[in-house]
Amino acid sequence: MARTSVNSSSSPIGIFDSGVGGLTVFKEVRKLLPFEDMVYLGDTARVPYGTKSQEVVIKYSIQNAEFLLSKGVKTIIVACNTASAASLPYLKDHFPEVEIIGVISPVVRYIKTNLHSLTKVAVVGTKTAITSGAYQRALQEALPGVKVLSKPCPLFVPLVEEGMFDHRVTDAVIDMYLSEIREAKVGAVILGCTHYPMLKKPLQKYFGEKVAVIDTAFHTAVSLDSVLCEKSLKNDRSVDGRNEFYVTDSVESFKKTAELFLKFSVDQVFHI
Amino acid sequence: MARTSVNSSSSPIGIFDSGVGGLTVFKEVRKLLPFEDMVYLGDTARVPYGTKSQEVVIKYSIQNAEFLLSKGVKTIIVACNTASAASLPYLKDHFPEVEIIGVISPVVRYIKTNLHSLTKVAVVGTKTAITSGAYQRALQEALPGVKVLSKPCPLFVPLVEEGMFDHRVTDAVIDMYLSEIREAKVGAVILGCTHYPMLKKPLQKYFGEKVAVIDTAFHTAVSLDSVLCEKSLKNDRSVDGRNEFYVTDSVESFKKTAELFLKFSVDQVFHI
Repeated sequence: MARTSVNSSSSPIGIFDSGVGGLTVFKEVRKLLPFEDMVYLGDTARVPYGTKSQEVVIKYSIQNAEFLLSKGVKTIIVACNTASAASLPYLKDHFPEVEIIGVISPVVRYIKTNLHSLTKVAVVGTKTAITSGAYQRALQEALPGVKVLSKPCPLFVPLVEEGMFDHRVTDAVIDMYLSEIREAKVGAVILGCTHYPMLKKPLQKYFGEKVAVIDTAFHTAVSLDSVLCEKSLKNDRSVDGRNEFYVTDSVESFKKTAELFLKFSVDQVFHI
Repeated sequence: MARTSVNSSSSPIGIFDSGVGGLTVFKEVRKLLPFEDMVYLGDTARVPYGTKSQEVVIKYSIQNAEFLLSKGVKTIIVACNTASAASLPYLKDHFPEVEIIGVISPVVRYIKTNLHSLTKVAVVGTKTAITSGAYQRALQEALPGVKVLSKPCPLFVPLVEEGMFDHRVTDAVIDMYLSEIREAKVGAVILGCTHYPMLKKPLQKYFGEKVAVIDTAFHTAVSLDSVLCEKSLKNDRSVDGRNEFYVTDSVESFKKTAELFLKFSVDQVFHI
């Protein structure tokens, strides 16, 4: 695939995810940067990444980045915690010509700046994201001495995809995975998977209002904004940006979920 | 990929599945036909199929069959309900040179022969398997007048993969999906997914002893035996057959799960 990245301010922002979860990041970027064009790639034919090996996730991530570069994007957001955890250093090595932003550093930077008195923090995510140790390493580097607990929660994604945001089964699963973390009295819980913000309400209720339940989407959008400013890549027009979506499986089923996530009508969806 | 199927009785039996679920079928074939060589392909890099479109499942199934044919198999078992439901006619069309057996007809034939007084039957499975309507059509053709209820149960596979065979969350999920089917007083419930036999115990308890809870693995092995006899393709030696496993993702994680499913040590696992 030809790399036609032009790195000009009028080029679109590229985002990829294993499927629909990255739309939570897309949504925050859309709100913060309304004048940017955006190209989203959801690898729905191979979703999920969170149960697959690091080796396979790296391979898929490189292919996704190649595709976005062929669309001339000026920057790439890896809007998937698993792909960020497993493949970000490989992607940066492989594509030095373009700025690549994952979802892990932005939230770690936010915690370092805003929650510096934190002594215990937990991160929850997919099996691959948690076993990669990427979050744990990034947190311990940024906040030396902080105690990091972690827990893979493989049933959360299927629960979200079943729309069970407010359900006794979901509450029971939350308790099954997270009772030890609640007992450990952490100050913050990072939702290390782009699906998990859909469970923020029951999770916040479970941990209580004193615990910060933090998702990565908003902080990723803020990081992107900084990077674009720094590199003078921000689109300086005042016209609403265009959205283009590419998927590797069914257009129809993606369109339906995307409209549920984004709460606006989604037209430009293409199969690749 | 070259097709080197030789259709001789000493050739191996090929089996494919989206991942590890098809090992329940592998296990029954191994028991019934101990002298056959077997080649298993688990498409673990693209698992699961049950949430993907029919179009994508057909594409993957054809690639899997191509691979098994390159290993010289004499017959192919599609040990995945989703792939059987979505792609069997396409596979048979595409590969007329080899006998291809799915997991749906064997269980329908068993019901027709053994449970002919049945008036109401339910089939449970993945989204793609159930919405394809393949089971429903096969049952209504074989047993005209029978009432077929069906229900996709997307949380069952992740529950099995979490090893939650005996857990209050699993019982709650079973009740959430299947209370209407229990109230409808069906005579039999077909487990239309190769993962579901691992939940047979809680399901049997939920429906009660009078309801037949039927899985497809054993009946598929019986069908294979008949086909091999009919076509004079049965291996007539008296030496234990060899097993070879191929996976598209991590060998180690497959090996671990396979040993859990099969209860014997699994050595010959290769990455493709």
